[in-house]
Amino acid sequence: MRAREYGLNIGSMPTGKLNKITDVPGVSVGHSTVIDEKHQTGVTVIMPCPENPFTHKLPCASYVLNGFGKTAGTVQIEELGTLETPIAMTGTLNVGKIHDAMVGYMIDRCALEGKRVVSVNPLVCECNDGSLSDGRDRPCDRTNLDEAIASACEDFAEGAVGSGRGMGCHGLKGGIGSSSRIVNFDGKNYTIGVLVMTNHGKLRDLQIDGRLIGPSIDDAINADLPDKGSCIVILATDIPASDRQLKRIIKRCDVGLIRLGSFIGHGSGEVFIGFSTANRTSPKDTQIRQVELMNEDCIDTCFRAAAEATEEAILNAMFAAEAVTNASTGKTKRALSEFYGKV
Amino acid sequence: MRAREYGLNIGSMPTGKLNKITDVPGVSVGHSTVIDEKHQTGVTVIMPCPENPFTHKLPCASYVLNGFGKTAGTVQIEELGTLETPIAMTGTLNVGKIHDAMVGYMIDRCALEGKRVVSVNPLVCECNDGSLSDGRDRPCDRTNLDEAIASACEDFAEGAVGSGRGMGCHGLKGGIGSSSRIVNFDGKNYTIGVLVMTNHGKLRDLQIDGRLIGPSIDDAINADLPDKGSCIVILATDIPASDRQLKRIIKRCDVGLIRLGSFIGHGSGEVFIGFSTANRTSPKDTQIRQVELMNEDCIDTCFRAAAEATEEAILNAMFAAEAVTNASTGKTKRALSEFYGKV
Amino acid sequence: MRAREYGLNIGSMPTGKLNKITDVPGVSVGHSTVIDEKHQTGVTVIMPCPENPFTHKLPCASYVLNGFGKTAGTVQIEELGTLETPIAMTGTLNVGKIHDAMVGYMIDRCALEGKRVVSVNPLVCECNDGSLSDGRDRPCDRTNLDEAIASACEDFAEGAVGSGRGMGCHGLKGGIGSSSRIVNFDGKNYTIGVLVMTNHGKLRDLQIDGRLIGPSIDDAINADLPDKGSCIVILATDIPASDRQLKRIIKRCDVGLIRLGSFIGHGSGEVFIGFSTANRTSPKDTQIRQVELMNEDCIDTCFRAAAEATEEAILNAMFAAEAVTNASTGKTKRALSEFYGKV
Amino acid sequence: MRAREYGLNIGSMPTGKLNKITDVPGVSVGHSTVIDEKHQTGVTVIMPCPENPFTHKLPCASYVLNGFGKTAGTVQIEELGTLETPIAMTGTLNVGKIHDAMVGYMIDRCALEGKRVVSVNPLVCECNDGSLSDGRDRPCDRTNLDEAIASACEDFAEGAVGSGRGMGCHGLKGGIGSSSRIVNFDGKNYTIGVLVMTNHGKLRDLQIDGRLIGPSIDDAINADLPDKGSCIVILATDIPASDRQLKRIIKRCDVGLIRLGSFIGHGSGEVFIGFSTANRTSPKDTQIRQVELMNEDCIDTCFRAAAEATEEAILNAMFAAEAVTNASTGKTKRALSEFYGKV
Repeated sequence: MRAREYGLNIGSMPTGKLNKITDVPGVSVGHSTVIDEKHQTGVTVIMPCPENPFTHKLPCASYVLNGFGKTAGTVQIEELGTLETPIAMTGTLNVGKIHDAMVGYMIDRCALEGKRVVSVNPLVCECNDGSLSDGRDRPCDRTNLDEAIASACEDFAEGAVGSGRGMGCHGLKGGIGSSSRIVNFDGKNYTIGVLVMTNHGKLRDLQIDGRLIGPSIDDAINADLPDKGSCIVILATDIPASDRQLKRIIKRCDVGLIRLGSFIGHGSGEVFIGFSTANRTSPKDTQIRQVELMNEDCIDTCFRAAAEATEEAILNAMFAAEAVTNASTGKTKRALSEFYGKV
Repeated sequence: MRAREYGLNIGSMPTGKLNKITDVPGVSVGHSTVIDEKHQTGVTVIMPCPENPFTHKLPCASYVLNGFGKTAGTVQIEELGTLETPIAMTGTLNVGKIHDAMVGYMIDRCALEGKRVVSVNPLVCECNDGSLSDGRDRPCDRTNLDEAIASACEDFAEGAVGSGRGMGCHGLKGGIGSSSRIVNFDGKNYTIGVLVMTNHGKLRDLQIDGRLIGPSIDDAINADLPDKGSCIVILATDIPASDRQLKRIIKRCDVGLIRLGSFIGHGSGEVFIGFSTANRTSPKDTQIRQVELMNEDCIDTCFRAAAEATEEAILNAMFAAEAVTNASTGKTKRALSEFYGKV
Repeated sequence: MRAREYGLNIGSMPTGKLNKITDVPGVSVGHSTVIDEKHQTGVTVIMPCPENPFTHKLPCASYVLNGFGKTAGTVQIEELGTLETPIAMTGTLNVGKIHDAMVGYMIDRCALEGKRVVSVNPLVCECNDGSLSDGRDRPCDRTNLDEAIASACEDFAEGAVGSGRGMGCHGLKGGIGSSSRIVNFDGKNYTIGVLVMTNHGKLRDLQIDGRLIGPSIDDAINADLPDKGSCIVILATDIPASDRQLKRIIKRCDVGLIRLGSFIGHGSGEVFIGFSTANRTSPKDTQIRQVELMNEDCIDTCFRAAAEATEEAILNAMFAAEAVTNASTGKTKRALSEFYGKV
Repeated sequence: MRAREYGLNIGSMPTGKLNKITDVPGVSVGHSTVIDEKHQTGVTVIMPCPENPFTHKLPCASYVLNGFGKTAGTVQIEELGTLETPIAMTGTLNVGKIHDAMVGYMIDRCALEGKRVVSVNPLVCECNDGSLSDGRDRPCDRTNLDEAIASACEDFAEGAVGSGRGMGCHGLKGGIGSSSRIVNFDGKNYTIGVLVMTNHGKLRDLQIDGRLIGPSIDDAINADLPDKGSCIVILATDIPASDRQLKRIIKRCDVGLIRLGSFIGHGSGEVFIGFSTANRTSPKDTQIRQVELMNEDCIDTCFRAAAEATEEAILNAMFAAEAVTNASTGKTKRALSEFYGKV
């Protein structure tokens, strides 16, 4: 069950068809989930467009809300304002291996098109699933990346799947969640879609729809922990927004976290990524090319959409996530659905 | 009446004695208010320390949450990490005149100490009081700055005073508000104090203590407007925080705005300033000097303090502000106190 | 005489017709110079386009190479990526008064077009002419701004004029200088023009065309001083560059300073501004509009043009500047032309 | 032979004993070089202190001069201002594998001290050695990292070694170079040391000691190429500089590149890292601790030291580097020493 099935209609704007990031045409999402004695982890990928992003780079921006994190790839995104690979997410200690896997994937994919890659900028985001999964052996590799990419689709699973498998949220189980909003400019509909990987927040701070419900759940399960997690937010849109506009838009994703009670704790890596599927480059581009550009006065609507979709995406991650137990330690992260409406 | 007198106990941390920014030892605040046929405006100053800040520079950081604003002085603060003048706040179009007034004030103050000033970096913040005050003639000048400085004290007024005279908040009357929190490190108490000048937010989005009360007030007065205002937040502390740590701390002041319903709209200038009264420079400094530094692990408490104090400061600004009418246009910004607990 | 008349052909790229920033179509520059017993100062303005920039905003970026400076207006330029006023330059302590003058000018100019201004972001840059001019009484005001604007033309004067009147450079006299370069994309010529206000550098570090000539001049006049000045660089172009691309381009202006011997000293305010006359906004813009955008692969040529034009603009400022004496103190800044080719 | 042996005495400041980054007490450098049919590549590490940097974090800053690069680890350095691992450098496509190797190394090293690592931020820098080495199979791994660390010493090799094995510079052979400068504060000597991995610059732009020698070399070997490389600069010091001060200091390293003729081309990743060995954290730190801090007025000397040492380090890299040939393609990068003083 998703947030809306619990009667939680976040905000006032209309959602896309699936109410997921994949409502943005061309975007797909896939997972590879690893479950064994030691691990509850995985890899999730966001495929930004059907074409090869290396030859069809997408306008992109990153925003670091809190940089206690290991996301790789933002230096070049900041400089050039473009995304040139799929976006991969995984557990903290696994960033290097998935970075290397993405290099391998891009070399192979480009080779199929007759293009030799000598330099490519993988974007690999992470949260720390160390409390449910012992990632010190870095269990995810190229196989997992390939599996995630192969499974990429529009109606992807939420909750304790892929890279979200071992993640928490406000002391309960979190993971992958998504939501979308529709805006209209010049009579045409555009979509803003958000996907989150949650791993942030303190249980006692959790509030849903304005109601502070964390303390009563915490009293029931006595599981409170410091706010040491992270949250990755990926925002996609087909609006012709520039990289600067994308950065302004994703900066408002923090509204979604804060409305659910986060104080953006020190020990977290809140990194937000936004890309547009409009105005992609092409090998055929002339030196000066024609592009579309959103009027800055339209951006307020995008801000609200980003905030609403992020809040709902986090709720969807929490409602979809079943309880998960670390087989080695016996430690469990309980599911919000066990408590919501009952405490 | 302040928020606590309405039973609103924001957060969980203890407040300072006055529950104002001036709980930080040495900090004082003064106002000069201008009220006439055309104007509802003024100047507010925050005096960071009793000594001359030009010769006793304070660690300082700025954070631009949304830069649709005209605050002057942040370039040098970013580079050098220090504040060297009092902080002045006024209406948007009046920034130049108060900038010039501060230059004059600093030249005169330093002259009294036998110091010739050939370069000084005034920090002048602003929000736009244009809906209640026609600022096109820039009515505030050195006289107002001097009056504000002369009146600086610990138990200063909140609400529709000083630079807050013509400001709104969530479609109602806003202005100046303040709050503080106490933290303890190594057995010693420190204070984090916040002062806000509010001019942001949409009425329909206003929520207090988790309750969305904006729509019912809006239904009563039919006054909703786009979120075009701004919010200035000044944070003071006696914690020995570095400029980088101050920037991290003030970044969390947005939690206070967002918990009351703001989406950080496009047409606003949200600029946050933080300074520490610890580790001030002195003309007697050696080339390498001894300073204190807060352990980074302590910063989470500061984040929460900043968020709580900002939320309460905004509420204090709104509860303290009486309704104000633009005498020329008849336009009124109503007071929250007229409605709170009644709709 | 300009640098080329001394046989100094900086770089390899072709210049525009006047070899000035005004080779960019629509750009003009004007000065107001103040000379009296106490002052050697003034105001210089760069008019970015014939239309009102408030209603025809221009893509713009700022880059702070060293922020020991008081430039006002960059917060909004960073956020919105646009310039909405002429660019004014003056002495450090005069920033507030010229900021206020620009507000007044924009209110009046917009009123002529029936537009009421309630908020506007003046861009006012500065260097410190304190060694030749006692600016503590802030002698420049609206009259000077108006005079500078009224005199704006294409073939403007360089050297010790306008805001450059009291400025130095490498211990000698500096001031205003300019240069331009032509690039070609898709068979069409575009111009990159640079205007500098120099006030930076140490005499002993001065090198011209690879030759370290500072020490011999310094031995002759015994005038060496610490590197405490500043340098403002304004870059204009008609290339359809985005604000991000403009920022990348102006970042290379430091090459020009460094090739002449600067180490970008601590006590200086190196602030660079870049704007494009392409893709200006218009009151008639639709929500999504068509714009042109330069391919990122073209940017290397722009980098070289920015570096070459900045180096030559600084030389032009120095060669054009006659010696100026502070009448009160008798202190003189000598002219490079007195020494070049002779020591 | 190093630059000084060619009579090139860059700048005016005294060097440290070895004139290398390792003149900073506690810093050591090691290499692992890979040479085979397909590869001319390797790994170089900078060990910042004898203690485990994870438990003795060092003040650190990064500065991205041009972000067309894949350096990983800067997000956290920017947020927390600390370095917690050795610094590794390698070829572009190998970043992921060395990132993973560093995670493994840190887990193992901390385990020896009884500390369990669940999150660590490797700093891995890169340039692209693709023209001399086919890195598409990512040949470097944990073995190379361990070898580089095991070989770390004070009097390390320069030139075509370690990660510098396949790198170029201004169309000739480049690689690893180093230099240092001594400053004195309050009567005590401190060291600023620089290590570069060069891969930047165009041959025709090369100038040494003010003399443009690139064109004559290029005429001799007809090898000119676009400026597509990169340059990594690592600066170490024992001055008690804050992270903000370190960022200001490393920003001046570009002076060294530019004085040798670079225009900081588009296709390069110029990333600079600076760390201080002073004020390291310790597990025994109290919440408020005593540290030393350099007076900002001392920083000009540090700027000059950074600029001089970077320029000399690049020259040392070029003079030390022998010619290297790609065995597969036959492509050679010639040595500067073949031409210097002869053309």
